[in-house]
Amino acid sequence: MHHRTAEFREIFSRTLADLKIFIGTQNDVLLLASSGTGAMEAAVSNLTSPGEKVVVLSAGKFGERWRDLAKAFGLQVELLTVPYGETFDLGEVKAKLDGARVLFMQATETSTGARHDVKGVAALLKGTDTLLVVDAITGLGTTDFDVDGWGIDILIGGSQKAVMIPPGLAYLSVSERAWQRMEEAKQPRYYFDLRKERKSQVKGETAFTPAVALVCGLAAALDFIRRGGNGNLVDGRDALIHNAETSAAMVRAGANALGLKLFAPTCPAAAVTAILAPAGVDSSAIVKEFRERFAMVVANGQGEMKGKLFRIAHLGYYDYLDAIGVIGALEHVLQKVAPSHNFEIGAGVRAVQETFAEQFAEAVRV
Amino acid sequence: MHHRTAEFREIFSRTLADLKIFIGTQNDVLLLASSGTGAMEAAVSNLTSPGEKVVVLSAGKFGERWRDLAKAFGLQVELLTVPYGETFDLGEVKAKLDGARVLFMQATETSTGARHDVKGVAALLKGTDTLLVVDAITGLGTTDFDVDGWGIDILIGGSQKAVMIPPGLAYLSVSERAWQRMEEAKQPRYYFDLRKERKSQVKGETAFTPAVALVCGLAAALDFIRRGGNGNLVDGRDALIHNAETSAAMVRAGANALGLKLFAPTCPAAAVTAILAPAGVDSSAIVKEFRERFAMVVANGQGEMKGKLFRIAHLGYYDYLDAIGVIGALEHVLQKVAPSHNFEIGAGVRAVQETFAEQFAEAVRV
Repeated sequence: MHHRTAEFREIFSRTLADLKIFIGTQNDVLLLASSGTGAMEAAVSNLTSPGEKVVVLSAGKFGERWRDLAKAFGLQVELLTVPYGETFDLGEVKAKLDGARVLFMQATETSTGARHDVKGVAALLKGTDTLLVVDAITGLGTTDFDVDGWGIDILIGGSQKAVMIPPGLAYLSVSERAWQRMEEAKQPRYYFDLRKERKSQVKGETAFTPAVALVCGLAAALDFIRRGGNGNLVDGRDALIHNAETSAAMVRAGANALGLKLFAPTCPAAAVTAILAPAGVDSSAIVKEFRERFAMVVANGQGEMKGKLFRIAHLGYYDYLDAIGVIGALEHVLQKVAPSHNFEIGAGVRAVQETFAEQFAEAVRV
Repeated sequence: MHHRTAEFREIFSRTLADLKIFIGTQNDVLLLASSGTGAMEAAVSNLTSPGEKVVVLSAGKFGERWRDLAKAFGLQVELLTVPYGETFDLGEVKAKLDGARVLFMQATETSTGARHDVKGVAALLKGTDTLLVVDAITGLGTTDFDVDGWGIDILIGGSQKAVMIPPGLAYLSVSERAWQRMEEAKQPRYYFDLRKERKSQVKGETAFTPAVALVCGLAAALDFIRRGGNGNLVDGRDALIHNAETSAAMVRAGANALGLKLFAPTCPAAAVTAILAPAGVDSSAIVKEFRERFAMVVANGQGEMKGKLFRIAHLGYYDYLDAIGVIGALEHVLQKVAPSHNFEIGAGVRAVQETFAEQFAEAVRV
């Protein structure tokens, strides 16, 4: 399919309209042919001028990406860091804000499985001139956002997470305040120039050649999510989020029942659960055994956490079967690679089942 | 398939190695998750510092893209323009070079169907400090390059043209001189930071999430081209180029036999042929009739040429069937939308056949 055709324009425009519903915003939504990091760069290069002060909240590899991006664009970075696996104290965030033009954060830090308090941070920024940019690449479809109510100026999503298609597409919602800021922002930008994209995308086109096959895939994925809501995309999205929350609770319960420690116990994300390897065990061996014996892809830690933890995703097309399967397999994996770690065979899967039953009962009660 | 796996690393590394053969270079080759314009931006932001003098050769919409990119990055642009459909005088190019850090050009200008003299421009730059950057997005696989012999510092290709897969991937070869220049280049860059990409890609990884499905598609496309060369990728690529040259000659002959004027008669590209609509006829009507009656996608003019010409592509998976089919259909289209344009029915397809026979005879003689 050629992209300068009525056929593609129709699919593209419908996908943008569906994304607005999926994200839950009246703001403009734009699609970019890049991975999520490209949309992160777009937020930096479109909203800032060299030398300006910005705040970056960093508690993992993707927080560090905001930091590196802001530095690459010559910004004065006010960095708030907390250890991997933890989240931010709102008082400490507030103390950093004076004079900041933009605050950059993650909704969920994929490298640690931690969830950050976007609503709380947004409340601190209300009535100030500090714009709020949220990387929700793993957050969208796994957690609730009120983009317009809270005041998120740019919210970023990707294609390969909860919307379940291959990577290569990013999308972002852009508030009226953010469009205004762009008029004064002086960073060089071209491929990721959002004002130019908006001019094309309102007409169902893109400034540069779009990733046609991935756009068609995204259109189909949003239709699939809509069917999960019996024809209503908002209901489908909420079912997707509920599914992620339920799966995450099942995996956490299973890990706890096997005597394993969660890496982000106080602020767990629904997108991914990071679990510490037992003392003295390299998590790389756990990842390898999962792959070789069960053909299951479990991720290693990233950056400084490589070898120390493993991460189980539960976003998008992931359900009861996967949650009970991965915890069942984990029991066999631990027996093999962590023979001195004590646990009762079956305790993990039973905890998964009990958690499911509780969640289901709750759902019935509501 | 997850991208941080041995399985993907193997496919990715093999694809990079195949691309080096396909491009015909010993230079490093990198893949980017973006459309071709992203790789164009990478060339600008990695090789220059704000305020430097660069030369842009512009004879169409994509030449103007180089101009706009260079201006967006604060460069002092020495612009050599010639009218759409024409190409550059080497003497005029030479007169622009003094003090230029980089020269940016197209191999073939997709918007007009003109081919530019990359070899001639490269010869002018030999022994100077001016780097040569060539957008070969439609040039690769349709025309010959001697990247290392001529001295092309960055050559850019895309996924959706001669390699026949959907858009969303770009690739580029980078010379040792270009790597050295990057050490002093001061433009802000992050998503398209080539030095960071090289560090990852030599290990079969990417700095940011790659477009996994498109990389797998590209691997398969290069295998397909290799089979076209009986297992030899260079032979397959040369067959692809010969096929484009033959198809282009057939289409040009057909158009001429129908009394139509080529838009770039003195320097026609093998990737695409631009044909002027008969006097008084809007080319949009020709494009529309092709689509509605024959389900054939023929492109309109771009920019200022919209409505004045139509463009027939013949790159990649395009052969005798397509060339004779599109010229045959063109005869019916002209009868309908340009009733006062005189031509003999069948003259176009007969010219296509005669051209094919000549090409075939030549190939036999060689």
